[in-house]
Amino acid sequence: MKKYLLAPGPTPVPEKILQVMAEPMVHHRTPAFKEKVGKAIEGLKYIFQTKNDVLIFSSSGSGAMEGAISNVLNPGDKAIIIRGGKFGERWGEIAEKFGVQPLYIDIEWGTAVDPADVEKLLKENPDVKGVYTQLTETSTCSVQPVKELGEIVSKTDTLLVIDAISGLGGQEFYMDDWKVDICVAGSQKGLMLPPGHAYAAVSEKAWKVIDECKQPNYYFDWKKYRKKLATNTDPFTGSVLHVKGLLVAIDMIKERGLENMFYQYRVLGKAVRAAAEALGLEVYAHPSCDVATAVKVPESVDGLALVKILRDKYGFTIAGGQAPIKGKIFRIAHMGYIEMFDIISVISALEIVLHELGWEFKWGAGLTAAQEIFAKEYKF
Amino acid sequence: MKKYLLAPGPTPVPEKILQVMAEPMVHHRTPAFKEKVGKAIEGLKYIFQTKNDVLIFSSSGSGAMEGAISNVLNPGDKAIIIRGGKFGERWGEIAEKFGVQPLYIDIEWGTAVDPADVEKLLKENPDVKGVYTQLTETSTCSVQPVKELGEIVSKTDTLLVIDAISGLGGQEFYMDDWKVDICVAGSQKGLMLPPGHAYAAVSEKAWKVIDECKQPNYYFDWKKYRKKLATNTDPFTGSVLHVKGLLVAIDMIKERGLENMFYQYRVLGKAVRAAAEALGLEVYAHPSCDVATAVKVPESVDGLALVKILRDKYGFTIAGGQAPIKGKIFRIAHMGYIEMFDIISVISALEIVLHELGWEFKWGAGLTAAQEIFAKEYKF
Repeated sequence: MKKYLLAPGPTPVPEKILQVMAEPMVHHRTPAFKEKVGKAIEGLKYIFQTKNDVLIFSSSGSGAMEGAISNVLNPGDKAIIIRGGKFGERWGEIAEKFGVQPLYIDIEWGTAVDPADVEKLLKENPDVKGVYTQLTETSTCSVQPVKELGEIVSKTDTLLVIDAISGLGGQEFYMDDWKVDICVAGSQKGLMLPPGHAYAAVSEKAWKVIDECKQPNYYFDWKKYRKKLATNTDPFTGSVLHVKGLLVAIDMIKERGLENMFYQYRVLGKAVRAAAEALGLEVYAHPSCDVATAVKVPESVDGLALVKILRDKYGFTIAGGQAPIKGKIFRIAHMGYIEMFDIISVISALEIVLHELGWEFKWGAGLTAAQEIFAKEYKF
Repeated sequence: MKKYLLAPGPTPVPEKILQVMAEPMVHHRTPAFKEKVGKAIEGLKYIFQTKNDVLIFSSSGSGAMEGAISNVLNPGDKAIIIRGGKFGERWGEIAEKFGVQPLYIDIEWGTAVDPADVEKLLKENPDVKGVYTQLTETSTCSVQPVKELGEIVSKTDTLLVIDAISGLGGQEFYMDDWKVDICVAGSQKGLMLPPGHAYAAVSEKAWKVIDECKQPNYYFDWKKYRKKLATNTDPFTGSVLHVKGLLVAIDMIKERGLENMFYQYRVLGKAVRAAAEALGLEVYAHPSCDVATAVKVPESVDGLALVKILRDKYGFTIAGGQAPIKGKIFRIAHMGYIEMFDIISVISALEIVLHELGWEFKWGAGLTAAQEIFAKEYKF
């Protein structure tokens, strides 16, 4: 059976990236490899839309999240953390592990924070060192108002720290224009690579804070990585394969153009939402992000079975819900190497499985709604 | 030009491992993938020769080294650290970063510690929580008396912590029989995988200490990884590719048999040493380990040029010396997917380059010495 991967990470890896990763192993300290690292960093700057330093880590995205706390905040320091999903909670877990004093703004899962709430809390606590949130919250498929937060936070001494692990390269984002100080990302989402690489872009304002931070760390000691930028080396033996794959991914993204990619995923998202509504289903997040869509599972339908049947009977790996919304939503990714006809295919499979599970709807309604949007708006 | 990789990590990756890593991406939370993780952990237990828990991290080996300190030692705790090379120094750097009080045993680079010195220091400091050393010290190609250290340390409450990053799967090692409490390893050496995966095997005695440790950590929080062992999952989105490749590597190692592999690398090492001596060169480390050999560069020869010419003109990537011995040694690996005729080839290239650099020796003497050993002792 043919397999389709439409989960919000890992996403499908293009064949030509896999091919380059399957070439014979090379040493990581040769001039030829250092040149590749330098090019990869330049390419990442384009994708982050930044002139800032970009660091590469061999780890999951969570390793970069840890670094964005352990390099910035000392025990007892205050940080505003916006929690509206599993990854907002992760910022909180890491902060608490490192003895940080978190000021939580808890928002309903699947919604966006009101920037005015952040502004108010920041005024009441001018000693807050960082505001931590997500560009897109993978667990709910919501998008946060990063640009508006940048306007607010940049007027203060506080840093704006964004987890763009699932958003980078898919959801509209301009690090420098939006005045973001630290942005972390992962390889296995919009960048179309396998999991195992993580990235952090770091502003000068952030480096000043990092230089003063006393928190113990070693593998994720960002100052050590920064020092190695001059020679395009990794302080450790990093993932050679990911660097090679990343260069191909960067070429693919540059060829298409970042703006065009943002547009493409926006249209894919619109089509998924239209299909869901045409099938009588409700979109979970408001606002819904452009890189993945969460759809509520109707009460009469078994949400766990839906995801399982899609995978085991039809070959489609999508994602269910996590933690409090386990079984209550399903999530379809539309980022990275996912295009229009992948979405058509998964909607078809979804209709078939919903039908099997007893949900009533007009046969083909989802497909029709999606196709209508694609025919009008999708750019090939 | 054909390329030959004979550096002590990354080592060559077998074609069939690269192939499996180039298969289409799969999701990391499916039953099929969890089964693979379970098999990988079982296979690693064989390679570590342990019944202990084995944890898998998506990071360089240094990430596992950090965890072996940050999960074990609180600030102010004492640890004996044996320093006789760059990676012994790394244990020290990490310990100091985490506020540990290191008791250093500094040995001459390229030599082995005298177990009696460890025993004495341990008696004087019964509150030492861990003894940290290497199985093989990659920077010098020496081997440490781990078995003897196990006899000494196991009689106390102290833990024996071994960095076997370059040694595992190549240098003789039996974790449980040798009474080692924590052993860390990396993917890109004897395990024949690309860099990006690290491992830690952890004894029950060690878990008791880890459970009491209060050092802040998140990505390398070993307790979190241990909890996930029951479901064969990673707390994060780990490197799917490495798990897939690891299964093939394990099969290859099992097919050959660990004892046979130890034997093979021992013979390769013997041949490299014999070749070096036949060329009038001196082996650097005493005792020299079985997974790589460091050879002193004669004073009249430019050591940096030797490594560079081998790479750029003849396609052979070996390693030079690091830090105080930069330019003074060269290192040839004989671990992982390196076999007899790779060694014959690199000795041939070495003779040619030594000749170019003005070193006088009997043409073919290195090749002859190596071949003589292979003909008698190498098992195909």
